[in-house]
Amino acid sequence: MKFPEVFEPRRTSISVDIDGIIVGGEAPIVVQSMTNTDTADIKATTDQILQLAITGSELVRITVNDSNAAASVIKIREALDQKNCSVPLIGDFHFNGHKLLDEHPECGEALAKYRINPGNVGKGSKRDAQFATMIEHACKNNKAVRIGVNWGSMDQALLASLMDENAKRSEPYDAHDVMIETVIRSALESAEQARELGLPENKIILSCKMSVVQDLITVYRSIAQRSNYALHLGLTEAGIGSKGIVASTAALGILLHDGIGDTIRISLTPEPGAPREKEVIVAQEILQTMGLRSFVPLVTACPGCGRTTSTFFQELASQVQSYLRNQMPVWKKEYIGVEDMSVAVMGCVVNGPGESKHANIGISLPGSGEKPVAPVYEDGKKTVTLKGDNIADEFEAIIDAYVSNSYSRK
Amino acid sequence: MKFPEVFEPRRTSISVDIDGIIVGGEAPIVVQSMTNTDTADIKATTDQILQLAITGSELVRITVNDSNAAASVIKIREALDQKNCSVPLIGDFHFNGHKLLDEHPECGEALAKYRINPGNVGKGSKRDAQFATMIEHACKNNKAVRIGVNWGSMDQALLASLMDENAKRSEPYDAHDVMIETVIRSALESAEQARELGLPENKIILSCKMSVVQDLITVYRSIAQRSNYALHLGLTEAGIGSKGIVASTAALGILLHDGIGDTIRISLTPEPGAPREKEVIVAQEILQTMGLRSFVPLVTACPGCGRTTSTFFQELASQVQSYLRNQMPVWKKEYIGVEDMSVAVMGCVVNGPGESKHANIGISLPGSGEKPVAPVYEDGKKTVTLKGDNIADEFEAIIDAYVSNSYSRK
Repeated sequence: MKFPEVFEPRRTSISVDIDGIIVGGEAPIVVQSMTNTDTADIKATTDQILQLAITGSELVRITVNDSNAAASVIKIREALDQKNCSVPLIGDFHFNGHKLLDEHPECGEALAKYRINPGNVGKGSKRDAQFATMIEHACKNNKAVRIGVNWGSMDQALLASLMDENAKRSEPYDAHDVMIETVIRSALESAEQARELGLPENKIILSCKMSVVQDLITVYRSIAQRSNYALHLGLTEAGIGSKGIVASTAALGILLHDGIGDTIRISLTPEPGAPREKEVIVAQEILQTMGLRSFVPLVTACPGCGRTTSTFFQELASQVQSYLRNQMPVWKKEYIGVEDMSVAVMGCVVNGPGESKHANIGISLPGSGEKPVAPVYEDGKKTVTLKGDNIADEFEAIIDAYVSNSYSRK
Repeated sequence: MKFPEVFEPRRTSISVDIDGIIVGGEAPIVVQSMTNTDTADIKATTDQILQLAITGSELVRITVNDSNAAASVIKIREALDQKNCSVPLIGDFHFNGHKLLDEHPECGEALAKYRINPGNVGKGSKRDAQFATMIEHACKNNKAVRIGVNWGSMDQALLASLMDENAKRSEPYDAHDVMIETVIRSALESAEQARELGLPENKIILSCKMSVVQDLITVYRSIAQRSNYALHLGLTEAGIGSKGIVASTAALGILLHDGIGDTIRISLTPEPGAPREKEVIVAQEILQTMGLRSFVPLVTACPGCGRTTSTFFQELASQVQSYLRNQMPVWKKEYIGVEDMSVAVMGCVVNGPGESKHANIGISLPGSGEKPVAPVYEDGKKTVTLKGDNIADEFEAIIDAYVSNSYSRK
């Protein structure tokens, strides 16, 4: 009756300090995100970063794709500082990072970390020099670097060389395995190059993003064994709607279970017009439902069935979840530990009382054929029974009172 | 360069035939769902079952909560048969299943499987007799049974007995572990009772649903070792919106990775007014993104960033995913294997061409600052370049042509 630990112990990694946010070592797994505004649009980008940071993004990446974008970075940093938002900014560089960092030294200083994609650094003889330029800026400015490999932009020269080498074997490996090895080798060899250029190991984070769940798991399991750098996890090009959420959660869930991963980003394609913060919320939900970190009290709610014929139940579950998310910034200032509170909203007598008793606070609505009353349970004991038209407001008031009575004030 | 298998081998289980749908053994993992209409409303329930079955639910559960519901089951079955829908129906029984099966013999015959919750069978001396009545109906009608334990409705007598036993130990186990053991023991002992009453092992499926991800993993890992019954997986009371999807995927993803699970149901609380089929789509997405089964071609799409400033990209990704889902029923009738097709919709040159080449068919839209043209790749080769206002329609036509040229006709 002593059950084994569910998760593997966390992998040991070298921690990296990104302007006060620690990634790796024994630090909690960090949530990050990326803007989708034009970086040259200072107002729009600043606003989106603020929104991402308020939602819980502890690092925010922005693309630095041209001279206008590079020139805007310092202004975005200043605008954020003026609004008391200290979230570290990460510059995403491809193709021309060496040039932009040379031409906009204040950009390299304002950023807290540079993301360098070894597949998009430059071709042929220019590659090493351009890579070195970026690393030298990082060293000079004392900045962290993510060596960020992506399956969609593999280092073609390295791939060709590994493919050639493989073809010469008496029993060649599968081409897919050679591609996977290319991704890993690209990250490890670029990190080695950065070290030789003087970047210390506690300034280096690695990522190798793949778009297929099983490939991502294969790559990270291997790179986790072959290095002790801090690892940034993400399924690239996860897609839109529930597919993006499902694919990201399946891949990252299994890796986090393995103890692998120091920071995560969820690459969701927003539904047209949907808020960018969704990727932050999903990242938090992965960590929280797996018991790795807590951010906002989450609602346990049954799916409803033929016993719960009204949509009142769905509306209440939805309203309570929104209420908890909206109240959390207020509670966080006043109380300690509210983010761990569990709340149940249940639709009928089958599992309602039981699940409500397991939660810190729960309500069991009446199913069809039951008396139209809704018992409320606090810490496993029935405290009150609600009925009538104001159940939602009354239940929220009970949650407020529970928070104020049950959590220590700061 | 030979990477190990990502998933553990599938657990060996005894297969159960549910009116032609095989659960367990070497059968593909079956997707199921449950209605949320009033079962006594024959029209509404039949319509929802049809919709769930068309979306891909291979078994559908309905609540049989009272005499009106029980009397409706045969009529729902007949209405489905008339519409050529053969999806097996599962009756969900709590509290009064013994009575309803006695009073409505035609209900017990029309159902393909009975779900019995050992925690809601009856109290005290009535418990065993009422359980036996239901199992006898299953034996007589040659039906399968799911012994479906739920954390929200644990067998309180068994819990009390295990708690007492534990209290007498010199070093008592943790109370939480005793609750977990109660859930498992409840399933195993009820299955044993059913066997003694004459139900064969190939008519029994077990489930032990928990609402906390780590608890679900603990319970299923243990029950998977302690029996060889087919297992139905589901996180109970997963909740609303992305939280329900994330929690379900994290838990089931890890268990499926372990090789555990023969059929799955995703217990999502629908957003008010949202279609019930969402739970079927999420179940399919879990299995498909993990490479366990294929249902509908899925879209690989980047999250967009400051390089992809228009929402055209998001709209195209969304439109293409809907198009694929809507076309699949048509393609399925004509072609073999289209469900495995991979489609990429990418927002800029950073990973666009690379990811598009990895897909069966992909399009790389122009980011800001790029030429306003969108190269299309088929099986890794650029075949055409789209531009102008009709890119979406033209890309769909290219997909249609690709399907007709690349997949064998039935």
